[in-house]
Amino acid sequence: MPQDITAAESFGWEDALRVAADGGRADQSDLSGYFRKVDTCNRGMEKRGEFVEFTVEGQVVGYIHNGFVEHLRDFHDVFTIASGSNGSSTVEHVTLHSSLRTPDERTNAVGNVIKSLGDLIPGIRNELYPITSSYGMPVYFSLERAAAPYFGIKAYGVHMNGYVEKEGQRFLWIAKRSDTKQTFPGMLDHLVAGGLPYGISCEENVIKECEEEAGIPRSISSNATSVGAISYMDIEGFRYKRDVLFCYDLKLPADFVPNNEDGEVDSFRLIPVPHAANIIRRTHFFKPNCNLVIIDFLYRHGYINPDCHGYLKLLQNLRRGDCS
Amino acid sequence: MPQDITAAESFGWEDALRVAADGGRADQSDLSGYFRKVDTCNRGMEKRGEFVEFTVEGQVVGYIHNGFVEHLRDFHDVFTIASGSNGSSTVEHVTLHSSLRTPDERTNAVGNVIKSLGDLIPGIRNELYPITSSYGMPVYFSLERAAAPYFGIKAYGVHMNGYVEKEGQRFLWIAKRSDTKQTFPGMLDHLVAGGLPYGISCEENVIKECEEEAGIPRSISSNATSVGAISYMDIEGFRYKRDVLFCYDLKLPADFVPNNEDGEVDSFRLIPVPHAANIIRRTHFFKPNCNLVIIDFLYRHGYINPDCHGYLKLLQNLRRGDCS
Repeated sequence: MPQDITAAESFGWEDALRVAADGGRADQSDLSGYFRKVDTCNRGMEKRGEFVEFTVEGQVVGYIHNGFVEHLRDFHDVFTIASGSNGSSTVEHVTLHSSLRTPDERTNAVGNVIKSLGDLIPGIRNELYPITSSYGMPVYFSLERAAAPYFGIKAYGVHMNGYVEKEGQRFLWIAKRSDTKQTFPGMLDHLVAGGLPYGISCEENVIKECEEEAGIPRSISSNATSVGAISYMDIEGFRYKRDVLFCYDLKLPADFVPNNEDGEVDSFRLIPVPHAANIIRRTHFFKPNCNLVIIDFLYRHGYINPDCHGYLKLLQNLRRGDCS
Repeated sequence: MPQDITAAESFGWEDALRVAADGGRADQSDLSGYFRKVDTCNRGMEKRGEFVEFTVEGQVVGYIHNGFVEHLRDFHDVFTIASGSNGSSTVEHVTLHSSLRTPDERTNAVGNVIKSLGDLIPGIRNELYPITSSYGMPVYFSLERAAAPYFGIKAYGVHMNGYVEKEGQRFLWIAKRSDTKQTFPGMLDHLVAGGLPYGISCEENVIKECEEEAGIPRSISSNATSVGAISYMDIEGFRYKRDVLFCYDLKLPADFVPNNEDGEVDSFRLIPVPHAANIIRRTHFFKPNCNLVIIDFLYRHGYINPDCHGYLKLLQNLRRGDCS
């Protein structure tokens, strides 16, 4: 069983490109490196029993850890912690206080609780995520992005593979995140990716992120093609991440060079797809969820084929989370 | 709620092409026509309780209807019908007699039973399917293709979308099945599709079917690209179909014209992708499982996008069966 190279303190492009070009030693039909990346995004399934349902208007919108519920008990006028019986045992669930009727009332009340919880929820971004039972359904209220995993809210994002075709070969544009970025500094990333905030369509979000993250003008980015979705669920402590990523492909002109405009990217490299695949299989250099979106790309473009052992299982595992 | 046009006694290309070009009346973001096609392939889920497990070497390989089990009871030396308890109730399962140790012994013994069941299993094809717990796993024995649904065996196939790009538009080559074909005569079909018999890889099967069904030479068909898989489960009477279809795309030269060599196809037409989508949404002209593979094509090529209501649900429904 080959081991992965972990992202130590930091790594440079030269480290990534060395692994990328050195795929000759590996059996290209061995999917085990990809399975490990899926596992990295889907931890703690055995701890689901530690979470209780979070419901709004009778619909389950999230899951909250037993321990985190204790911190919400003091806010009687915002959260109602109800008990019900499930056979012989008593189960709790958390809902919003019945006096909070409109989305705005709920957004403000929950927002104030989050502020007063202080360090319990680090990394506040002042970016609101819509709370629904599933994508496209009515929005019950909006919640600070950094708080979403503490309420087990499904969060949606867009991830775009930007690629180039030349001389019969396909290349992926790969970004390296700025070393000063709050999350996953210095790691490899998609050309363009972002969370889906309240009130913007996927397509508009892709076009906006294309401009900000890679300097891709609308005349090109409007050709970005939706190609499906991946999902994962990851439990760590009080946090229950339930992410759904809408995947996009954008075929770029061969002479296009990306240019980061928001300071979040250190640099870009154009890498043959099989080389990017080697980095995924053999290292932890990519931001974890990017691995899944690139594996999906490898499936759709025939780089992983049915005669590889585990083909169907890995394909299914790309949507191990609630993809709704 | 718009209704679908059902395939009456027969229909001609002129009927299909009229619906195809008449998509202007429909809301292109309305996915309900696609959902109905998924439902057509996934009937009878509520009847799963009427089936018992069929196991070989301790692994579940299929499901057999209670009523069909009665027909197997007389064959003591081939099938063992064992009882076990599940809480308060007694459940049966069917396995092979312990004297049948090798794949060949099992294949022959079960084959003889199927012959002696006569009209109970119609449409014998003399084509063997491998029996495994999941794709790529050891083969326990082989079973006549027509008998697979009576044993609830997973059956695997390859389906290929052949397409052409010209003047910035994408077109699908669509086949119309021969009126004399045993199954689904006269219905619309993929350019190339076939069951996956014992002992042949997906890729070799695609190349073989390309030659036989559409006259595509290996020099072109070797460019066929694996792009994923779809699955469905369909219960009707004693039959429990569990199909997994490996999906392929093949981009064909703009001037290529298919030529059927095995007499199974009446004729071919090259149709703009949005027109093919209209036929799927509004009629039952396609052989049912082809709808799912073309819907998967529509997803991967951006013809269905995340801002359509039901995007994620339909995407998930393309693998409603056990895709393993």
